[in-house]
Amino acid sequence: MARVSQEHLDARRRQILDGAALCFARNGFHATSMQDVLKAVDLSAGAVYRYFSGKEELIEAIVTEVLSTLGDIFKGATTESPPPLPDVLVLRVLERMRELRPLTVDGEWMFPRLMIQVWTETLRNEKLGAVLTPGFGRVEEAWRQVVEGYRDAGLVPEDADARAMARVMIAVVQGFAVQMVLFGDVSEDTLRDGLRALMSVGGPGAVGGRDSQPV
Amino acid sequence: MARVSQEHLDARRRQILDGAALCFARNGFHATSMQDVLKAVDLSAGAVYRYFSGKEELIEAIVTEVLSTLGDIFKGATTESPPPLPDVLVLRVLERMRELRPLTVDGEWMFPRLMIQVWTETLRNEKLGAVLTPGFGRVEEAWRQVVEGYRDAGLVPEDADARAMARVMIAVVQGFAVQMVLFGDVSEDTLRDGLRALMSVGGPGAVGGRDSQPV
Repeated sequence: MARVSQEHLDARRRQILDGAALCFARNGFHATSMQDVLKAVDLSAGAVYRYFSGKEELIEAIVTEVLSTLGDIFKGATTESPPPLPDVLVLRVLERMRELRPLTVDGEWMFPRLMIQVWTETLRNEKLGAVLTPGFGRVEEAWRQVVEGYRDAGLVPEDADARAMARVMIAVVQGFAVQMVLFGDVSEDTLRDGLRALMSVGGPGAVGGRDSQPV
Repeated sequence: MARVSQEHLDARRRQILDGAALCFARNGFHATSMQDVLKAVDLSAGAVYRYFSGKEELIEAIVTEVLSTLGDIFKGATTESPPPLPDVLVLRVLERMRELRPLTVDGEWMFPRLMIQVWTETLRNEKLGAVLTPGFGRVEEAWRQVVEGYRDAGLVPEDADARAMARVMIAVVQGFAVQMVLFGDVSEDTLRDGLRALMSVGGPGAVGGRDSQPV
């Protein structure tokens, strides 16, 4: 009986978080009121405020949860040896995020839109920054471990900068989110093929070598 | 006399655009009023409205100008044969942007912050989207030409997807802007070293080859 009750509580919490995330993704945090959230989740104020004291707490919970989900997705990859190459791994991460955070409106996955709104809100909300920074640090650490896995397998040179490569991999995903939202004309295939092309610069598939390039 | 007058007009226009860009970068478009802009540029309403009818026109002029500057920077790179490799080229583009759009407050380069604010505003401003989309298209086209230059020089395989690689290169810069603004702990060196590491995956500097990798 207690277990059912916990499941019910969790499901309700999930319903509120998803509804709020959709509101925020569509209109931004600033332009979304708690009234909008109540309407979206179709619950009474009492039902919602039992879980969250207000918008601020909702935002923080959404960001915390997304970053923790991302961390879990990466945990799997870092235990593989060698880890999947960047083009494969990035697509797998996005696919899992789509499964775990469907958040779709009229066929558009709203998660990239939510990301952009979170960034903007973080510019003026220090408390959100305090949530985002350590969460981002964990994602960076996961990518760093992946790059070290490449290094152990001899897939990148010994002196490859793992932290820098982690940052660039995250940047690719962040930038892709921007392009998906603003231009809507990119697919995961574009991301995969673009990464493959970048990984091939001066590589074994190319005619010239990297060393032949004057820089 | 007429030439001096044109120079004066251009300088005044520049002063207004830069002042407005700083306001928008700091507080976003929504929270910035024309009063804020007038105060920032220290000009009368009459002097400013002679150039721009309001916030909307300012935003569009800023975005148009930034994208045209970016286009000019790339023009140089596409005439080199072969073009500079991605790690070199991205840094050169950023360096030129810093020179051409200094926009600094307390030592922080405000341009990345402006980018994020523009994205968010574009989510709800279709007219801005209509300015951003073709401008973005020109930057994509420039990167595509760069990748074709790599292909002609044998630096990427014949079947490398130029458009996809262009998109990924732009995504790296966009994502880096996000990290600069939100975490402030990345430098252009991180970007360069990360790109180098990514370009090296499975390449000649690595021990194993890309083909040895199970995917």
